[in-house]
Amino acid sequence: MKPSIPKGTRDFGQVEMAERNYIFDTIKSVFKTFGYAQIDTPAMENLSTLLGKYGEEGDKLLFRILNSGDAFGKVDFGSFNGPDGSVNSAALSKEVCEKGLRYDLTVPFARYVVQHQNEITFPFKRFQIQPVWRADRPQKGRYREFYQCDVDVIGSRSLVNELELVQIVDKVFSLLDVRVLVKINNRKVLTGFAEICGFPDKVVDITVAIDKLDKIGLEAVEEEMRGKGLTDSAIAVIERILKLSGSTSEKIASMRSLMNGGSPSGLVSQAGLKGLDELEELFSLIDAAGITSPVEIDLSLARGLNYYTGAIFEVKAQDFAIGSICGGGRYDNLTGIFGLPDMSGVGISFGADRIYDVLKGLGKFPSDLRSATTLLFANMGAEETRFILPVAKALRDRGVAVEIYPDPSKLKKQFDYADRKAIPFLSITGANEVESGLVNIKNLVSGEQKSFTANDFPGILGFLGFRG
Amino acid sequence: MKPSIPKGTRDFGQVEMAERNYIFDTIKSVFKTFGYAQIDTPAMENLSTLLGKYGEEGDKLLFRILNSGDAFGKVDFGSFNGPDGSVNSAALSKEVCEKGLRYDLTVPFARYVVQHQNEITFPFKRFQIQPVWRADRPQKGRYREFYQCDVDVIGSRSLVNELELVQIVDKVFSLLDVRVLVKINNRKVLTGFAEICGFPDKVVDITVAIDKLDKIGLEAVEEEMRGKGLTDSAIAVIERILKLSGSTSEKIASMRSLMNGGSPSGLVSQAGLKGLDELEELFSLIDAAGITSPVEIDLSLARGLNYYTGAIFEVKAQDFAIGSICGGGRYDNLTGIFGLPDMSGVGISFGADRIYDVLKGLGKFPSDLRSATTLLFANMGAEETRFILPVAKALRDRGVAVEIYPDPSKLKKQFDYADRKAIPFLSITGANEVESGLVNIKNLVSGEQKSFTANDFPGILGFLGFRG
Repeated sequence: MKPSIPKGTRDFGQVEMAERNYIFDTIKSVFKTFGYAQIDTPAMENLSTLLGKYGEEGDKLLFRILNSGDAFGKVDFGSFNGPDGSVNSAALSKEVCEKGLRYDLTVPFARYVVQHQNEITFPFKRFQIQPVWRADRPQKGRYREFYQCDVDVIGSRSLVNELELVQIVDKVFSLLDVRVLVKINNRKVLTGFAEICGFPDKVVDITVAIDKLDKIGLEAVEEEMRGKGLTDSAIAVIERILKLSGSTSEKIASMRSLMNGGSPSGLVSQAGLKGLDELEELFSLIDAAGITSPVEIDLSLARGLNYYTGAIFEVKAQDFAIGSICGGGRYDNLTGIFGLPDMSGVGISFGADRIYDVLKGLGKFPSDLRSATTLLFANMGAEETRFILPVAKALRDRGVAVEIYPDPSKLKKQFDYADRKAIPFLSITGANEVESGLVNIKNLVSGEQKSFTANDFPGILGFLGFRG
Repeated sequence: MKPSIPKGTRDFGQVEMAERNYIFDTIKSVFKTFGYAQIDTPAMENLSTLLGKYGEEGDKLLFRILNSGDAFGKVDFGSFNGPDGSVNSAALSKEVCEKGLRYDLTVPFARYVVQHQNEITFPFKRFQIQPVWRADRPQKGRYREFYQCDVDVIGSRSLVNELELVQIVDKVFSLLDVRVLVKINNRKVLTGFAEICGFPDKVVDITVAIDKLDKIGLEAVEEEMRGKGLTDSAIAVIERILKLSGSTSEKIASMRSLMNGGSPSGLVSQAGLKGLDELEELFSLIDAAGITSPVEIDLSLARGLNYYTGAIFEVKAQDFAIGSICGGGRYDNLTGIFGLPDMSGVGISFGADRIYDVLKGLGKFPSDLRSATTLLFANMGAEETRFILPVAKALRDRGVAVEIYPDPSKLKKQFDYADRKAIPFLSITGANEVESGLVNIKNLVSGEQKSFTANDFPGILGFLGFRG
């Protein structure tokens, strides 16, 4: 009988909401100091905007919205029957649903840029923090409604943009007090590997295999590549790459020599050399900007391989095992799908749910998020309330979160209220105090108790530990 | 060919978004000082939660979400044909849609309270700022996706709660620099009028007629009531009420005498007297708390008449004609629909779109919302950028929004960028400055220009007008 919510969705109560807002507010504050501006797009997009953008599997995971009004009135159901009499659900749903819920923030962003291209000042630096919906099978850590938090700059090929994203990541996690490792790869370097192997069309196979190195070891990786049709001499080239060591600049120098004809194949890759130039410049900018977090090259980073064209980013928490908590990269053709070619951009997405789990797991949420209220005035009756009202108002005007318990209930009940809401300060100002013009406040954590004249706001604020 | 968004929905670009956030952040900051905590509920609710809560018309305006997977696979279409062969769209859509988009924040709040009643500390003070969706015909000022901003306390009958809502309204609009008029009515007083007229079942008819007084005049109002079946002697009672004048306390005193047998009918209304007690206590609390905005009794306030049981609120802008910008009241049976009876609550809703229009119309948005960025460093080349990077970092760490133009484009283009984005300060720090360790900054509004040593942050911050 109790009402419930659809599976895979969540209610966020007061504490969880305060904790989530803490993450979003921190991220936003950093975005803003870099001049990124927030935009919002509608939850519903036309299905013509969404369909075909996420592959066949993605199309199935779109939540479709039934047309309003008489959705089925004009449908000829017979025409949606297959030869065996079964209904073609996909075709029928296209007929009765014109809109769907957004699946990510990337396609709506591309749509936005194309639709508003004449109003936008390029390079366009935007961020967007909104929920997305996917009809995935719900399971632990996977929801049907979840927030994405994307920051992108589009309309500039400069690597200063890549640097900024690394700076943003560095600053956000420094503010959240989480030690992270930033991993960087470059799609052009991966292309280069495939080219100097002599298998330029096997980039994906090679990268997928390399990605497993930590898990399955060198021999198994080589076997997998052999299975994909790579020759022993090609594999020998890959082996040379995988065995690279040293500092970032040493690695880049070694790769440059391999790309420049120094590998067993003797082949040269212009794409690879270009990718190494980019990596080198980016690391040089990172050095100049002064990044606190470690930043390293990870040649196995393969996310969004069909999509990214330059830098690829991934961020991991150093002290909590949960996979990547941010990821992104450079793309050259985001808006091409909507008819606006040649717009290069680079972006990164913060995984809010995972970052939440990291902060929770490491105990990094500030403890004052647990309570919305700093001071509760117990309700001792109508006269006392009238006496308290201007005091409460003055404190609120100074930014203190103050409650007056609304009913003159038993003190035990009012105490319980303060306790359950983790309110740290309680004022029991009764008839005697009112007569003397005093406000009594108790620190419920330390037990310390003090009386103040009702207009001694410096005194009260100080006792509440409020800087103002 | 250009992509578009569904009718009745909106994209919010950078400036509009900053302006909307200014409103929401102001409202939130006030909610928080009163100890209200934010919650979020999912965009999708089960249709069983939503259907039947908004009347027949409301059910039609719900956006329904097609079940995921093979939605139509098991549907026997024949069984949804009416006798004339037409399809019963409503019944079929119930069969293939289990979920819908929320229509307001009130029903999800009621659902939340019932579902989480064992975790919630009552009185429960919550606010919620989220979009809602309605399949209304879009027109000027009416959207299919729009934000609601609701604040409620549930689980207490104390009028201190009503007072708090008036205080919140007063504070929010004082911060937004908009002069408002707060109008208050009480459902029990309206009941009282009907009772002393001798027509206790005609509360709605009477109130609807009174509501038109300003527009159509006394005679037309009386004619309308006559048309609804009220007798001349009943109308004489109403006339006495409508002619009440004087201060709020004089009005309450006159009404008390009418409710207490002093009207032409001589009837007494206990409900009416109770309502007057409530009004009197609320105004006395308002006096004690010190409210800046004018607060007045408006007997024609009839919003949510089938729903509210005590106080009824409405807020109007004094200097901009747009109808009500906030509204709310006390309800006694919000959660009864979900099986939890006897939970009295009171709440108010801020109309974000109308408040936006008021601020826009009165020119009350702070001008610095137009720009996301305070200072743009022109890109004069790779060496200059490296010199600028630590300066930009230090300023960002101090909270200044700083951009470095990513590409070494022509200065004209970079100037245009600053101009179009309304960035107030531009730094053109070239090779000469770098050599002397100087940063040059120009105030693009006043034309004033100054050079600073690169680590003179007090000087730079002062020039940027940044308090830090």
